[in-house]
Amino acid sequence: MVLEMNKDFIVTPWEVKGEIDYGKLMAEFGLKPTSGLPAEFEKNALFRRKIVFAHRDFEKILAAHSGKKPFAMMTGLMPSGKFHFGHKLVADQIIFYQKLGARVYLAVADVEAYNSRNPDLAQLRKTAVEEYLTNYAALGLDLSKCDFYFQSNRSSDGRKASAYYALAALLARHATFNEFRAVYGDDITPGKMASALLQASDMLHPQLQEFEGKPIPTVVPVGVDQDPHLRLARDLSTRIKEYSFTQLSSTYHSFLPGLKGGKMSSSDETSYIALTDSAEEAEKKVKKYAFSGGRDTIEEHRKLGGNPGVDVSFQMLKYGLEPDDKKLQSIHDEYKSGKLLSGELKQILIEKITAFLKTHHKKREQAKKTVEKYLEN
Amino acid sequence: MVLEMNKDFIVTPWEVKGEIDYGKLMAEFGLKPTSGLPAEFEKNALFRRKIVFAHRDFEKILAAHSGKKPFAMMTGLMPSGKFHFGHKLVADQIIFYQKLGARVYLAVADVEAYNSRNPDLAQLRKTAVEEYLTNYAALGLDLSKCDFYFQSNRSSDGRKASAYYALAALLARHATFNEFRAVYGDDITPGKMASALLQASDMLHPQLQEFEGKPIPTVVPVGVDQDPHLRLARDLSTRIKEYSFTQLSSTYHSFLPGLKGGKMSSSDETSYIALTDSAEEAEKKVKKYAFSGGRDTIEEHRKLGGNPGVDVSFQMLKYGLEPDDKKLQSIHDEYKSGKLLSGELKQILIEKITAFLKTHHKKREQAKKTVEKYLEN
Repeated sequence: MVLEMNKDFIVTPWEVKGEIDYGKLMAEFGLKPTSGLPAEFEKNALFRRKIVFAHRDFEKILAAHSGKKPFAMMTGLMPSGKFHFGHKLVADQIIFYQKLGARVYLAVADVEAYNSRNPDLAQLRKTAVEEYLTNYAALGLDLSKCDFYFQSNRSSDGRKASAYYALAALLARHATFNEFRAVYGDDITPGKMASALLQASDMLHPQLQEFEGKPIPTVVPVGVDQDPHLRLARDLSTRIKEYSFTQLSSTYHSFLPGLKGGKMSSSDETSYIALTDSAEEAEKKVKKYAFSGGRDTIEEHRKLGGNPGVDVSFQMLKYGLEPDDKKLQSIHDEYKSGKLLSGELKQILIEKITAFLKTHHKKREQAKKTVEKYLEN
Repeated sequence: MVLEMNKDFIVTPWEVKGEIDYGKLMAEFGLKPTSGLPAEFEKNALFRRKIVFAHRDFEKILAAHSGKKPFAMMTGLMPSGKFHFGHKLVADQIIFYQKLGARVYLAVADVEAYNSRNPDLAQLRKTAVEEYLTNYAALGLDLSKCDFYFQSNRSSDGRKASAYYALAALLARHATFNEFRAVYGDDITPGKMASALLQASDMLHPQLQEFEGKPIPTVVPVGVDQDPHLRLARDLSTRIKEYSFTQLSSTYHSFLPGLKGGKMSSSDETSYIALTDSAEEAEKKVKKYAFSGGRDTIEEHRKLGGNPGVDVSFQMLKYGLEPDDKKLQSIHDEYKSGKLLSGELKQILIEKITAFLKTHHKKREQAKKTVEKYLEN
């Protein structure tokens, strides 16, 4: 079957719905395509395959990189359950930037979560450490070279902590209610406003005297739904004359679809494979839920071919589980021609996931110790 | 002449206008009169003369004091020019509470000033130190026993700083837009909202684990115009279940009138006597501007008597410059009977101010050094 998708789509920080027309979004938001990237970026599958498909002011980052000048990467995480392959997409970018030499800033958006959803703060912090931070470390993030913090507890250095929070409070002067509506929609609340301001400081504060000591290019890799946050931070940064900022850079990645197609959601465990799922669970989920781009019958599939563009198994390979472009292309072509059946494609994915998870779980055990030590300091 | 005052009055944090009916305000805000205070409070002219005329939950402070339990006093200052006798009214209370054994928290509301007015942050901080802090010290505040901070720079201890700011950010979840309108009126802005939240944290944060370590009674002495801030902080404190607070106490003082009657304003130097004014300047101001409750002619005055209730010279004596109740009463009676003329009353005030300023200016010179040392640490 081929999925009939909605032609109308919505992409906002509070709602992602329908079949996303990324080209239309780029035009609407004024984003540029990521093209002509230097070799080191092209070596990364996410850039090479245009999963990171668009950017704003990314030239500043490329210039800093080629000129061997310092630059920073900042991103936030909103702990909301199991760490899954959708989250890995962000982790892979963080680790890539760290290896490239960026100063890495990682915020746990616990204040944002508290103010916009309804979670238990203690549970939230536990999830941030056990799910996110541990998986980051297992995936290769060097914690010792990374500024990981909770929005609710910025730093053990009071000068730094004050600078971070005061920036958020002072940015408030330069914002309007309509701008917050652009980020959160009409059901804006004081809590969401406070969060949006803190997020703006998350993105901008690495450039303060108390942190990097001077304005430096800072890239924020996000899903395209988060762009209103970027636009708010960019606009506010130009208005607050007491500070001097290099304008923020951002990149936009497309969404890894959920197992059943549509959105991957932390609250629906049949929509994702978690990095803590056992190989057996993952296999079951792929077999049972993974949305197929194949035809209703084998005969039809052989004759008409499948649609890798909507096949979730193919997408998961493309998003990183098959790092070899040639192999990926051949899977693509064979599936499209009807030579490769949906069950066979699922089997390829299962083998890749199995191998990945087995290694990853071992790395997680080591990472737990690393994280424990890191948090002690 | 006897001033004809407006019967309609407005008292909000953003506007104070008309002849204030304090009784009506108390009924409207649900405040209790300050009565039956223990001896140590009655020794203080501000309490004894009912200049501090009302309170909310002040029993908690009295109980802590009589039970020798810890309690805190918190107040904020918005540096806006010269430190004058209106500001001294607050300073006198701070120093009184410190001597009583309260833990003293003093916030420079620089974020509030930045977000609600339009000042230069650097100038604002300079004023806070040179005008406010120096005069506090000269008036007798022991800086070494006081937690003095800027809203924009809470603490050199990152755990403390984060706890203070995070409280403000998390309180946001529990606030509504209408509550901010009650504090700031209809021209509410994101900046004013951020300030109101930080002010709520100013009042509540002494009770955090990171500061006093446990919920303790905390009194906030304010002018009655500031009550909406108190009500907001009180309401939010009961809603945020992640924290446990002893409900805030507050006291309300009436306003020292401006020299010309009406409001004392930092932006109009003919409306106040600054504590840095020379004795000569002060004398000139009293003679030229101090609003008189006397009659148009000496004959009339002798016959009908003056009105000490609106006479600014008498009010300044009452607000502290004449500490002796009997002397004050006799001035009151003689003025009311017509025996004391307006010029003579002014002369009494001038002598008191002259003596006060001469001593105070010497103390200021010493205080400058104390403040300098204090800020170095």
